[in-house]
Amino acid sequence: MYIPTFDDVKAARERIEPHIHRTPVLTSSYFNGLTGAELFFKCENFQKAGAFKVRGASNAVFGLSDEMAEKGVATHSSGNHALSLSYAAGRRGIPVTVVMPRTAPDAKKAAVRGYGGTIVECEPSTSSREATFAEVVAETGAEFVHPYNDPRVIAGQATCSWELTEQAEGLDAVIAPIGGGGMVSGTCLTLSNIAPDVEIYAAEPKNADDAYRSFKAGHIIADDAPQTVADGLKVPLKDLTWHFVSSHVTDILTATEDEIVDAMKLTWERMKIVMEPSSAVPLATILKNRAVFEGKRVGVIITGGNVDLEKLPWMQN
Amino acid sequence: MYIPTFDDVKAARERIEPHIHRTPVLTSSYFNGLTGAELFFKCENFQKAGAFKVRGASNAVFGLSDEMAEKGVATHSSGNHALSLSYAAGRRGIPVTVVMPRTAPDAKKAAVRGYGGTIVECEPSTSSREATFAEVVAETGAEFVHPYNDPRVIAGQATCSWELTEQAEGLDAVIAPIGGGGMVSGTCLTLSNIAPDVEIYAAEPKNADDAYRSFKAGHIIADDAPQTVADGLKVPLKDLTWHFVSSHVTDILTATEDEIVDAMKLTWERMKIVMEPSSAVPLATILKNRAVFEGKRVGVIITGGNVDLEKLPWMQN
Repeated sequence: MYIPTFDDVKAARERIEPHIHRTPVLTSSYFNGLTGAELFFKCENFQKAGAFKVRGASNAVFGLSDEMAEKGVATHSSGNHALSLSYAAGRRGIPVTVVMPRTAPDAKKAAVRGYGGTIVECEPSTSSREATFAEVVAETGAEFVHPYNDPRVIAGQATCSWELTEQAEGLDAVIAPIGGGGMVSGTCLTLSNIAPDVEIYAAEPKNADDAYRSFKAGHIIADDAPQTVADGLKVPLKDLTWHFVSSHVTDILTATEDEIVDAMKLTWERMKIVMEPSSAVPLATILKNRAVFEGKRVGVIITGGNVDLEKLPWMQN
Repeated sequence: MYIPTFDDVKAARERIEPHIHRTPVLTSSYFNGLTGAELFFKCENFQKAGAFKVRGASNAVFGLSDEMAEKGVATHSSGNHALSLSYAAGRRGIPVTVVMPRTAPDAKKAAVRGYGGTIVECEPSTSSREATFAEVVAETGAEFVHPYNDPRVIAGQATCSWELTEQAEGLDAVIAPIGGGGMVSGTCLTLSNIAPDVEIYAAEPKNADDAYRSFKAGHIIADDAPQTVADGLKVPLKDLTWHFVSSHVTDILTATEDEIVDAMKLTWERMKIVMEPSSAVPLATILKNRAVFEGKRVGVIITGGNVDLEKLPWMQN
């Protein structure tokens, strides 16, 4: 297992800079009043392809030798990593194949194809996905870019909190949502090197709290198919992300489904930004753990903005 | 009729600077590709109180002498001007009374009260509103701040396009929605002074196209209660705004209800920002008048972001 270093982050930043946005940091006097903290929202919902995932995907794609690149890249994902890898491969002009369950939303499939990606459908089960993916790789020789358990991906995600520390100086803490742990690992990698006193919090849906339980138990616990509105956060930690999470995270906090939806809607109303449910989990945990954050300068990573506007969670009751 | 000058705009900018946001300008490679133009979105949906109206309201409120301020301010509005005047009066710590039809949305009433405003309800008719408002002014001696036909308000709105010209250099055109014409008049006031070659377009719902017909006829035409999803744009031009519109506007373009809703939804999806239907009218007209804007650098003023998230227009069919 290769553990990426801050030199990898420096290389990533230079490599991906032409292909991504330096996203803005927004503040809200309303939310500062509500929480008693000073919050700095890093808006990766404005990122290319609509999510921070494009950082890691671009770093993987543009780091390939010409020879490797020729055979293309491949992944399995029905979420933002699929879009991001397709975007990055499209920018480099190389083939990309995404294995997706046939039940994935049409909008996501259309977005992958819009970026020039090829979709190979599998049944919505782990065994079908693995078998289908193995066939794709055997046939194309494509380079597998894992959604999070990949040093190139983590080094790419690490550029986000680096920008954040430049845009909001003197932070006391940073909080990000945790699913597989790619963003949190990148945050750990950056902050442990350039700002080791900054506390790192991870925020997780209570309905998919495998990272929380792993953190308390001291070893990886993986759940089978948890259900949460924060659909980007269902996947488990893996060895590389566990390394960072177990070494550098201060604490993991959880929020219920209602708390997540309320925080999401409140952000849309007050900050006028479109973000996905996963992105609302940090704010939901800040609102319910006032004592942890009060009086602190806190960076809050808003991870993505890809939402089905026809199916907003507060309208489904 | 006092016609505000660019000196008034300079004074306004200095006066309101501590109370408003210098809102960001966003770009979108997606929309540039779609339109063939280079678009610079001035995001007043991120403005204090959620709309550009706070510029004019703050200029009026903070320009009052202490003696006048003591008696407070008053207006009639069920929209963003009501919120903005309440916000500004709250910042100065003076009374504000808003006459609102009893049928106005509860959310708007709550927002006015949240900023410290007093609401006096009237029946939803012009006669009731005028009678009620006259009583309020007689009783309080409050200063009337008209939502748009007021030189202080126009000078305040004019600061928006001034910022825009600094944030996006070398613009060929600017486009803003038109209702009563406060924002467009401010835009005319600024650009005719500091960038007279920049074309000024106004965008209007076809269902409330009184400004369009006025512009073509050469005199003010006012409609009685037009119906459009762009509820900020129902009101007619008045003498002061007509002066600016008739002198400096290049053309007025219109869009249908469906075109407005489609442009609104597309902006939420692609730019990840929450904006109100009125704010989508400029983009809707750009999309249908490609030849007018192609190859140009165009400033697009997104006027506000106060939307009822429970009643999104694309969900009401």
